[in-house]
Amino acid sequence: MQIQKLKKGIVGFSLALLGMTSVGAADIIHDAQFNVLQRQHGETWKAEDQEVDRKLAEIRKQNGDKRPNIVYILVDDLSYGQMGSRKMNHVMGVNTENINKFATEGLALERMYTEPSCTPTRAAMMTGRHPIRSGSSEVKVTLVGEGLSKDEVTIAEILSQSGYNTSHIGKWHQGDIEESYPHNQGFDFAAFPVHQQVQLALMTKEAAQANNLFGWDPTIQSNDFVIDDTFRPNGMVTGLEAHKGATAKEVEMPAGHQWSQADYHEMNVRYQAQAIEQLQQLSKSDKPFYLQYWPLYPLNFVHDQTPNKSLNGGFMAEKLQLLDTWFGEFLQEMETLGIAENTIVILMADNGLMYHYGGPSGLSQLIYRGGKTDFLEGGIRTDAYIRWPTAIEANTAAGDIFHVSDLFTTLATIGQATDYIPRDRVIDGINQTPLLLKGEFSGRRDYVYVYQGDRLAAVVKDEFKMHMPVPGMPGAAAPVYNVYRDPREENPHIGMALWSGASFQDMIKRHLMTIEKYPHLPLGKGVPYSGIDNLRPETKKLIDDFISWH
Amino acid sequence: MQIQKLKKGIVGFSLALLGMTSVGAADIIHDAQFNVLQRQHGETWKAEDQEVDRKLAEIRKQNGDKRPNIVYILVDDLSYGQMGSRKMNHVMGVNTENINKFATEGLALERMYTEPSCTPTRAAMMTGRHPIRSGSSEVKVTLVGEGLSKDEVTIAEILSQSGYNTSHIGKWHQGDIEESYPHNQGFDFAAFPVHQQVQLALMTKEAAQANNLFGWDPTIQSNDFVIDDTFRPNGMVTGLEAHKGATAKEVEMPAGHQWSQADYHEMNVRYQAQAIEQLQQLSKSDKPFYLQYWPLYPLNFVHDQTPNKSLNGGFMAEKLQLLDTWFGEFLQEMETLGIAENTIVILMADNGLMYHYGGPSGLSQLIYRGGKTDFLEGGIRTDAYIRWPTAIEANTAAGDIFHVSDLFTTLATIGQATDYIPRDRVIDGINQTPLLLKGEFSGRRDYVYVYQGDRLAAVVKDEFKMHMPVPGMPGAAAPVYNVYRDPREENPHIGMALWSGASFQDMIKRHLMTIEKYPHLPLGKGVPYSGIDNLRPETKKLIDDFISWH
Repeated sequence: MQIQKLKKGIVGFSLALLGMTSVGAADIIHDAQFNVLQRQHGETWKAEDQEVDRKLAEIRKQNGDKRPNIVYILVDDLSYGQMGSRKMNHVMGVNTENINKFATEGLALERMYTEPSCTPTRAAMMTGRHPIRSGSSEVKVTLVGEGLSKDEVTIAEILSQSGYNTSHIGKWHQGDIEESYPHNQGFDFAAFPVHQQVQLALMTKEAAQANNLFGWDPTIQSNDFVIDDTFRPNGMVTGLEAHKGATAKEVEMPAGHQWSQADYHEMNVRYQAQAIEQLQQLSKSDKPFYLQYWPLYPLNFVHDQTPNKSLNGGFMAEKLQLLDTWFGEFLQEMETLGIAENTIVILMADNGLMYHYGGPSGLSQLIYRGGKTDFLEGGIRTDAYIRWPTAIEANTAAGDIFHVSDLFTTLATIGQATDYIPRDRVIDGINQTPLLLKGEFSGRRDYVYVYQGDRLAAVVKDEFKMHMPVPGMPGAAAPVYNVYRDPREENPHIGMALWSGASFQDMIKRHLMTIEKYPHLPLGKGVPYSGIDNLRPETKKLIDDFISWH
Repeated sequence: MQIQKLKKGIVGFSLALLGMTSVGAADIIHDAQFNVLQRQHGETWKAEDQEVDRKLAEIRKQNGDKRPNIVYILVDDLSYGQMGSRKMNHVMGVNTENINKFATEGLALERMYTEPSCTPTRAAMMTGRHPIRSGSSEVKVTLVGEGLSKDEVTIAEILSQSGYNTSHIGKWHQGDIEESYPHNQGFDFAAFPVHQQVQLALMTKEAAQANNLFGWDPTIQSNDFVIDDTFRPNGMVTGLEAHKGATAKEVEMPAGHQWSQADYHEMNVRYQAQAIEQLQQLSKSDKPFYLQYWPLYPLNFVHDQTPNKSLNGGFMAEKLQLLDTWFGEFLQEMETLGIAENTIVILMADNGLMYHYGGPSGLSQLIYRGGKTDFLEGGIRTDAYIRWPTAIEANTAAGDIFHVSDLFTTLATIGQATDYIPRDRVIDGINQTPLLLKGEFSGRRDYVYVYQGDRLAAVVKDEFKMHMPVPGMPGAAAPVYNVYRDPREENPHIGMALWSGASFQDMIKRHLMTIEKYPHLPLGKGVPYSGIDNLRPETKKLIDDFISWH
């Protein structure tokens, strides 16, 4: 981790007017928009922070001066309502009874916003920053020679510095260069695939036979016109394992082996087992731990309904139900280990449904419109539940706005790691510890800047959401939606929301001025698959093809 | 009540082949489609029925040989998810905490089908029959000179015959002729408006000023071209009260008074008070009671947010929240009276959302598409919760298919009134008592015929739903939807569901043959507002205008 010195640009007018000064106990630099709130509530919040600090100190004291363990389970591609609701289970014909029960054991964050895709959401949580600030706003599918920069500071790094043991199991999807790997971003141990499910679950013969992948697999059709083999990638790196600072090793993947659905399933089973193993090992230490378990399921594209069989039967719905079983086993292991009481467990999805396979997958858009890749609520609203029996009241829910980046600052606060949060860059994540401890209406966020890739696509404030005007159109033509009254964003208000137009524009100006003062940092660049010991011959060929100027 | 002798038509081929024989202990005539199930499960169900009978007898014995009281609360125009779910509360920005709690105290019937509009759903529940069989499939808005026939046999009549005290409070909407009024259809006491909310909540100056009613109110616009005063009705009968067999009296409505939003609110307040008064009175008797409370709210078209103020603020959303408060008070009164344990309380909506006022009303389509008047799931799927602490397990849910007409037969069974169910006509309602007592997967219905007015618009079987083919198109072109995988019915399967086409057609044939054997009965006809003592002068004029040939 290096903290890059930033050249401070000269901003066109005084940012002091916006109150862009240090905020909170930790002098963390937030977006100017937050300072607007800070100026209105700063005094109240300061007192509240002291109350929260006392409460946290009390909890530590009750637990032999040990800070709570933290487990962060991030599920891939599920829309709001698909986890944790018996009613929605009946709509879908699936049974997620373990998740439903878990959802009543703590605080349900019913207005959790993510980014619209995997890489950006995960980057936002890892860094506490909008992914655009770290160049992580795009999803990468095959080799890219890019990834999360070593100059970004992750939640794992700061918790590690403050004395936590840290492990990552499962999906990572932050790049294919050495500096981006989890064991180089603060994790003591990591088991993860370099890529994501396009490679691992779609690029198989079985997915092609299931009609879910066209053109890639040669066993389905003649490729006689093909003269460029490299357009259809083969031989990508699969699962890696590594310890902090060391080089990585590809596991369970013999040279020459063609990856299949069975391998994908086996990888899922392995990560589940490793997540439980990590629980067992980490719980033995005197130090608290931070464990990330990011499953690959429910993303799946082939019917292999063993051992589950839901009423729905869709190839993703089945895996959602399987994941529920696994989640139940994971929680049970925490009980067995006696660590459930003082461990924070967060369960949420990284973005909306991968609705591009709606219908046969068994999962479809429910309440909100859209899904993965969309700036609509269906793309960026997910179920999110947080349990911490020692401190969070069971069976509560909060409609306060929460952004996934807030977890960074909130967990840093609870883990006493805020001193390690860098002060040379914008941290979008807001400390929402008061919301966790005091419940609904104690939130400190009433806005979200919604990016779709690099484009600012919408702005949320209270129950209102402005979709950014089509380029060339005046701001007054921008549609504004009321998400309570029109959750599917189908009936735009222009006239009826005209009072809000200038206010939304002010929010955008503040955000842009913040960017001007604290420019975005570059994405890490390098050689794909650097830092891996045992590359297969087919992988080496793939790298050669990728770097074709050699 | 008269049971009309039906002329039995000669059916084109033998119905004996369809097994259209007596079914169940009570020899009730069901649709031939049910007999298909009966032939497959008759033996099992017979044994189960004996078990259920023993259980019911045991419960009666525990309660001093008293059968349970029954409260049936039917709410107007809400779609699935709008009552009883904290998660959906957060989506909508409303708080229905009392309903949410109630939803966990018994069995949630998560696949309750109604008819798509008020009158037909209420007729189906009252008679246990598809409303087309009684001519009640259309909604009436102003004077019609029609209504539920005296020859129909209602749940109130049969429970009354078997020894229940019966009361009806609130919306009735079964016609404007004397024989159709609730006190002539089995209720000992009734307080009800003749019409519905188009008259009571929309045809006011306030609703016109709120831009929710065009052209009716002369204070908003010039009607200088109007030469026919009667096209815009005025002076309709409002709230009536009556005892069984007596004539009715209009209440709280002085001659010459112009109905307003304040009157509408006052009427709602009055029905809430009367529902509670009925609870108090009925609970004093040694006889069990059947109390219907059918509120008019949340239908509402004017902002008058006192005393509630939801986060949503829409003019219907507000009243949903108010209704929740009232429901809480009603339940509390049951506790106070000490009758909660052995009283069955059913809470449900009569059909989907009145989405024609979506947006400003604060209520919008959520999971399912469409609303009131639609044959889509959004029109005919509603939240339904049933609590009976003595017999129904708390915090359970069932995904079994249930049709509102099943309540007729089920409540008749529990109330020991099946002997009074007529045997000369089709009863669509299936006895679902086993489902209530034994829980999910004990349902006896796997199909629904979905009518939209007089048109058979769709057929549901298991998770499949066929939309009837467009006239002139072959059956093989009919789209079939999987409601688990595609709850919004947006992605029709034709090819992938071809195996089911003939099966669906067979279901339709069975249904039509049933109708041929047991033809529909006629709707009651008569003079509008017959049987009312104190008609106002303006009402008498309205009747004269209506019957213009006099």
